[in-house]
Amino acid sequence: MTDVTARHGSRRREQTRARLLDAAHEVFGDVGMDAASVEMICERAGFTRGAFYSNFESKDELFLALITQLAEEKLDAVAGRVRELAPDALSDMSALVHQVVGASLGDRVEPQLISEIRTQAMRDPRLAEAYLTWQNVLRDRVEGIIQQVVSTYGLRLRLPIDDAAQLLLDVSDDTCARATLEGRPTEEITTLLNARIERLVMVLVEAPA
Amino acid sequence: MTDVTARHGSRRREQTRARLLDAAHEVFGDVGMDAASVEMICERAGFTRGAFYSNFESKDELFLALITQLAEEKLDAVAGRVRELAPDALSDMSALVHQVVGASLGDRVEPQLISEIRTQAMRDPRLAEAYLTWQNVLRDRVEGIIQQVVSTYGLRLRLPIDDAAQLLLDVSDDTCARATLEGRPTEEITTLLNARIERLVMVLVEAPA
Repeated sequence: MTDVTARHGSRRREQTRARLLDAAHEVFGDVGMDAASVEMICERAGFTRGAFYSNFESKDELFLALITQLAEEKLDAVAGRVRELAPDALSDMSALVHQVVGASLGDRVEPQLISEIRTQAMRDPRLAEAYLTWQNVLRDRVEGIIQQVVSTYGLRLRLPIDDAAQLLLDVSDDTCARATLEGRPTEEITTLLNARIERLVMVLVEAPA
Repeated sequence: MTDVTARHGSRRREQTRARLLDAAHEVFGDVGMDAASVEMICERAGFTRGAFYSNFESKDELFLALITQLAEEKLDAVAGRVRELAPDALSDMSALVHQVVGASLGDRVEPQLISEIRTQAMRDPRLAEAYLTWQNVLRDRVEGIIQQVVSTYGLRLRLPIDDAAQLLLDVSDDTCARATLEGRPTEEITTLLNARIERLVMVLVEAPA
């Protein structure tokens, strides 16, 4: 195989993965994770089961790849906003939090999906390991984002940075899950999340001397 | 019906409920919430379906009653320990946290159960409402416990008390869920929880002037 066909192959492979992930997202929204079969997902994506299994080992692996993708998209957006922070942004902590957290929420499918995968992982050690790996990657990324804000503005945290990152993730997860259970629309969830993160940040950051 | 027979009836009813809850706990541990049928639970408890449905409207309601009971037992224990706090306990915040949080953890079945009920609630508005009511009761109780510690020692919190209570609950839930996924034994989960709550409390409580 020449380099060119290898590149072609790898691009096509990526497109296949992407279409399977989109299809999984849709099917999950329609029928949930238990009922979403590999067949249904393949049919929606227009692929054979062979195409599925050359990309994913199992349905669980596919759904984990899906939440990984959704989370990465959000964190990419947050990281991008952090890079664009103005040097004087610190004068208004509330505006700073809004700018960083932003409308970085997906639809209400996401908290459902995370909840289902976590529940599943509690009964399946292999999925648990993959889920925990994903959670650690997530925390590392949040840590990197906090680190950048902290060094840009010369802030001091009241907690070790990994603890602060975990706390922000826990609060985000919980706020989104609860607001989803309450049936709130996405914009309202974003507002709630911003408010809660803002109060938490005020506590985590030591007041400048 | 005389008062005496009414009392008898109500005591027997309580015993029936208690036995159904114990049976549900066991069956859940064996087969999970989805597979746990009303039949299986009745058989384990030694009751008819009639007895079941005169106590609970549905399997979901039974499981919600079960986590309510488990949470109340833990919070009763915490509240008891708070009442017994020594006047000079504040000199060692770490010891204080250990004394209050204590070994207040159930088995690893509990995080699984909570996770399953929450997932279920995301797809069932009626269960969602019941779940949220339970969560609010829980937060109110934690708020009461914090209030008692705060007034006993004249502390000042850096967050509104309901926010602090929610944060402690989120951190507990997340720590227990993650440690369960990691397959840690109960004592280790307790140690982790104590350490995380202690660091959080140090942040939430303003240093005495």
